[in-house]
Amino acid sequence: MMAVNAVFESWNNQRAIIYRKDYSIPDNWGTAVNVQTMVFGNMGDTSGTGVAFTRNPATGEKKFYGEFLMNAQGEDVVAGIRTPQSIEKLKERMPEVYESLVEIYQKLENHYKDMQDIEFTIQDRKLYMLQTRTGKRTAAAAVRIAVEMVKEGLVDKKTAILRVEPEQLDQLLHPIVDPKAKVGVIARGLPASPGAGVGKVVFTVESAQEMSSKGERVILVRQETSPEDIGGMNVAQGILTVRGGMTSHAAVVARGMGKCCVTGCKDVNIDEGKRLFKVNDNIIKEGDWITLDGSTGNIMLGRVKLIQPELSGNFAQLMKWADEIRKLRVRANADTSHDAQVARDFGAEGIGLCRTEHMFFEGKRIDAVREMILSDTEKERRKALAKILPMQKGDFKEIFKVMDGYPVTIRLLDPPLHEFLPHTEEEIEALAKEMNVSVEKLKAKSNSLKEFNPMLGHRGCRLGITYPEIYEMQVQAVFEAACELAKKGKKIEPEIMIPLVGHVNELKYTKDRLIKVADEVMEKMGVNIKYMVGTMIELPRAAITADKIAAEAEFFSFGTNDLTQTTFGLSRDDAGNFLPFYIENKILPKDPFVAIDQDGVGELIKMGVEKGRAARAGLKVGICGEHGGEPSSVEFCHKIGLDYVSCSPFRVPIARLAAAHAVLKEGRADTISTTA
Amino acid sequence: MMAVNAVFESWNNQRAIIYRKDYSIPDNWGTAVNVQTMVFGNMGDTSGTGVAFTRNPATGEKKFYGEFLMNAQGEDVVAGIRTPQSIEKLKERMPEVYESLVEIYQKLENHYKDMQDIEFTIQDRKLYMLQTRTGKRTAAAAVRIAVEMVKEGLVDKKTAILRVEPEQLDQLLHPIVDPKAKVGVIARGLPASPGAGVGKVVFTVESAQEMSSKGERVILVRQETSPEDIGGMNVAQGILTVRGGMTSHAAVVARGMGKCCVTGCKDVNIDEGKRLFKVNDNIIKEGDWITLDGSTGNIMLGRVKLIQPELSGNFAQLMKWADEIRKLRVRANADTSHDAQVARDFGAEGIGLCRTEHMFFEGKRIDAVREMILSDTEKERRKALAKILPMQKGDFKEIFKVMDGYPVTIRLLDPPLHEFLPHTEEEIEALAKEMNVSVEKLKAKSNSLKEFNPMLGHRGCRLGITYPEIYEMQVQAVFEAACELAKKGKKIEPEIMIPLVGHVNELKYTKDRLIKVADEVMEKMGVNIKYMVGTMIELPRAAITADKIAAEAEFFSFGTNDLTQTTFGLSRDDAGNFLPFYIENKILPKDPFVAIDQDGVGELIKMGVEKGRAARAGLKVGICGEHGGEPSSVEFCHKIGLDYVSCSPFRVPIARLAAAHAVLKEGRADTISTTA
Repeated sequence: MMAVNAVFESWNNQRAIIYRKDYSIPDNWGTAVNVQTMVFGNMGDTSGTGVAFTRNPATGEKKFYGEFLMNAQGEDVVAGIRTPQSIEKLKERMPEVYESLVEIYQKLENHYKDMQDIEFTIQDRKLYMLQTRTGKRTAAAAVRIAVEMVKEGLVDKKTAILRVEPEQLDQLLHPIVDPKAKVGVIARGLPASPGAGVGKVVFTVESAQEMSSKGERVILVRQETSPEDIGGMNVAQGILTVRGGMTSHAAVVARGMGKCCVTGCKDVNIDEGKRLFKVNDNIIKEGDWITLDGSTGNIMLGRVKLIQPELSGNFAQLMKWADEIRKLRVRANADTSHDAQVARDFGAEGIGLCRTEHMFFEGKRIDAVREMILSDTEKERRKALAKILPMQKGDFKEIFKVMDGYPVTIRLLDPPLHEFLPHTEEEIEALAKEMNVSVEKLKAKSNSLKEFNPMLGHRGCRLGITYPEIYEMQVQAVFEAACELAKKGKKIEPEIMIPLVGHVNELKYTKDRLIKVADEVMEKMGVNIKYMVGTMIELPRAAITADKIAAEAEFFSFGTNDLTQTTFGLSRDDAGNFLPFYIENKILPKDPFVAIDQDGVGELIKMGVEKGRAARAGLKVGICGEHGGEPSSVEFCHKIGLDYVSCSPFRVPIARLAAAHAVLKEGRADTISTTA
Repeated sequence: MMAVNAVFESWNNQRAIIYRKDYSIPDNWGTAVNVQTMVFGNMGDTSGTGVAFTRNPATGEKKFYGEFLMNAQGEDVVAGIRTPQSIEKLKERMPEVYESLVEIYQKLENHYKDMQDIEFTIQDRKLYMLQTRTGKRTAAAAVRIAVEMVKEGLVDKKTAILRVEPEQLDQLLHPIVDPKAKVGVIARGLPASPGAGVGKVVFTVESAQEMSSKGERVILVRQETSPEDIGGMNVAQGILTVRGGMTSHAAVVARGMGKCCVTGCKDVNIDEGKRLFKVNDNIIKEGDWITLDGSTGNIMLGRVKLIQPELSGNFAQLMKWADEIRKLRVRANADTSHDAQVARDFGAEGIGLCRTEHMFFEGKRIDAVREMILSDTEKERRKALAKILPMQKGDFKEIFKVMDGYPVTIRLLDPPLHEFLPHTEEEIEALAKEMNVSVEKLKAKSNSLKEFNPMLGHRGCRLGITYPEIYEMQVQAVFEAACELAKKGKKIEPEIMIPLVGHVNELKYTKDRLIKVADEVMEKMGVNIKYMVGTMIELPRAAITADKIAAEAEFFSFGTNDLTQTTFGLSRDDAGNFLPFYIENKILPKDPFVAIDQDGVGELIKMGVEKGRAARAGLKVGICGEHGGEPSSVEFCHKIGLDYVSCSPFRVPIARLAAAHAVLKEGRADTISTTA
């Protein structure tokens, strides 16, 4: 290796001999020196030099691919002063040399059983190989090469699967900016959600919805987003925010939607009044075309050409092989029938997390939700909830239909109620008018719901316990939907999931009431539905007392987002001031919101699984945090024996491949570890 | 027992026979019936009835104490229609009966070896004993009876110790309203901090300080309190707030100060402009006298007579016996030399938690703190910190002096910086003027520091890591203070405590820098101080990875307040909307912020102790949450082998007694459990 390196360097430096000294060697040691004869590609028209790949590194096509320069050393190829020729031209100029090169590259690829990146020099018609190494490639090429090499009998399926890094697939699952396109980058933000999007700039949810209803493609540009913006985000091709980081609301929701998103672009100055934004010297008005690249954070002027993902052929073949090997099931987090469809298209085997609160924001529903919140009595609340019931029921029916018998885990309402109320003075005034209540009453309600630490506040099952009518309505909606479909012969097996349980009594209290509602609906409809009631394990206390909780829970789903926040005592929304510093200075080995912190959070998960299964044999256990689609976390979930992972639809293929990797790496030394 | 109960009931109901039916017995079972002859105290002037205690239940004095009525049944004594006579009168009226009664009561007390509550009836000069049971008594009586019975040889010291419930002592440690005083209760709030206080009403910190500097006693009346009110709370006799619960800022701080506090008194309407408050029909103006009872929540008009605590004599004797038995050391949480002195007076053997941020609020210091926060560069921050240095150094010197060689654990800055900035529009404007910065700059800074979940935000060691100069200043102050005293021959052994560590790297990063500062100071001063650097264990992750953290920590102190919040995912400040419902409906067996949740938080503590000691033999471990002074929690700490508990100074005696109870109850079935 040393010799090869030395020659390679000399090749660039045009020195015949190179002295290599390893400065870490103590002074009283001798210094090793390799002396090696150089070959010269610049000895006239019968000499030359080149680089080549045994297959196309961009597409994976099985075709010799490279370039060379006559009468040149390697530096000339690298420096780009002269334009190299395509490798085919060598066949014309020096057929014997070319033939010899082909023979060698084929030998090398057959020997290493992988695509090679080779360097060569021709000195006076004689071919010298300078280097060979496994070639870097795009995701598309990786997939194609892996699959074709299996067909050629060069490698087996297992090797092929391991040749593609799960994280790489992300490139294939979203539209990307055509690498050949000419682009004008006007600013760069954080690459918050991968893929690219082209659309006309809009600044409000209303404009987004209005324009998209006319068939226009839009990019939503906001200071930051909040749950009220979901409607606009839903119809946009991409989202751009001035504030927020990789884990801001916009970023998390966009990733869930598989939509490109660029956040934290502080150069952008929005002037909502004038309906424009300024960035550096550019002024972009509402309706102007821009292109976002959520994989790089680039913001580009105009309509840039995109390449759409191709999920059949080799990709489908590789995924099929991965599915044959993996033991973990892969579900998706999906809140709408559209997401559910995307999830199925990507191979999801169920919904692991259907967040019912997202249904509360859509369209006119938010009015009924607000009416419910402003109610003073249970009776008034039930009246308002009755308006939401048919809408939720409709949602569930659509989702059940799409999932066609696959399990659907429905999480009952989780966020604190104040998330459904407006926050600014103007919004409050507008709402008060609309709802026909006094501004004072609305403000008083809003104030009474205000929390110091909403993350640790009146949410999850705490809401379900203090306002049982909310969960009752939701469960009624689930069972009415399920029963109606069951009557038509559909197989529906809902899994009702209670969020934020810390003590088994919370689960028992809630579950007892919900089973009653379910039974009533089933009796009324004359149908019997097989269902389960389980819980999120997203608080340290739930994991620690998992044996007690398993006595009441028919399944566990680890909510690793909240579990990471509580285990670390770290609010994801507030971590921006120090977490980047921590990662940079290696105080934390990795961002624990990206990859499961195996030593801390992971220990709790392990404890939860062990205690839970000890108390209830065969307890079904999965995870539904964002970690469910991150390869090292998927491997961890496999190792500790989870039944499934659930992730955003666009990460389902990544999780499928990572789950196969986990099986193949079992017992090997190169298993992924997130901890130092 | 059944027969006795039956007679007792019949005695009240004047029925000769009573049928007792236990309705829980299934219908096909027989019903047990006791038939018993009655005796009658209402058969003329040679008959009567009475109740008595073998010792005085209010004071504990060893003197027969009771009352009787001639020609009466028990109901007449209870109903209060006739005024009973003192038991001594019986001696005059029926000497033989009295003699017989004395003989019996002495026999009963000697038999049961405890003060008895007896009931008797005389039927035609013949004495019948109806009942005897252990008598209820005040805390003062409990202490006196226990100690005197040891001296009389009736019980041993261990029994005496167990005869006084630790929680009872709280009555003895604060001034109380004289039970004989006539009081006019105008409203009632939550009994947030025990004891009673008398003073003139003030509404602002400034008035409180001004009046108290003139020797006036004041009661601070506020909507709610915030850290900026500390100065006013410090000088007040008591605190009354309109808002907030048992765990509000006012409640927690007042308990720490051992000061009475009534919170959540919604009937009080403060008109700050007119400097008065209205409550029901009363108008109380600034300067009017009121009396607060923090043990009952009562607010009384005028100056009510109080009884001051008596801590010598029997109390001191009992505590001495407890100290001989207990194995846990007891420290106090104290932030000032005044608190430290109170703590020592109550028998604290060190300071387990000295919160340095409280020093940041006092007087002019807050200006320098704000200057530091508003600084844009490290250099500016260091300049502002240099102003705080001599003040902190002075504080530490005073505390070290009072503690006279006892260990002092100093926690470096913990709260997020925004806690030091004003929040209302007016306050911000006033501060901007005072600090000579623009309102915009101040607002921008304040906004940039705003957090969604401050509890999980940029605080604790996260601040110390991103702004190392803050902790460096604090450690410099500690060591300069310690060195100066050491030069004078004092023994000072500071324990530097890093808060909110979740990953060992945070501790290592901080510790390495602080040791450097400590070494520099010691070298400069030419003194060598023995010191330790340790950490709070207040995040689940710290407990789970305690083995790794112990590699860097010389001691652990469990911060059970925050550990409870993160383990449950429950913000103490926001729990008011559901926690009371949870306790009432037995969803949680006890308030986990009062008594350690042994199944959940307790498991984490156990894990932390075991892992920590496995990695570092003899690791010193204590707790410093509010639980440190709660008896069932103290018993738990004893069981799992902690070295010490630390609690607010006023709870030190409770902790001392509870620690002795823990030893005495070991292996017995009646150990306290907080869980169902």
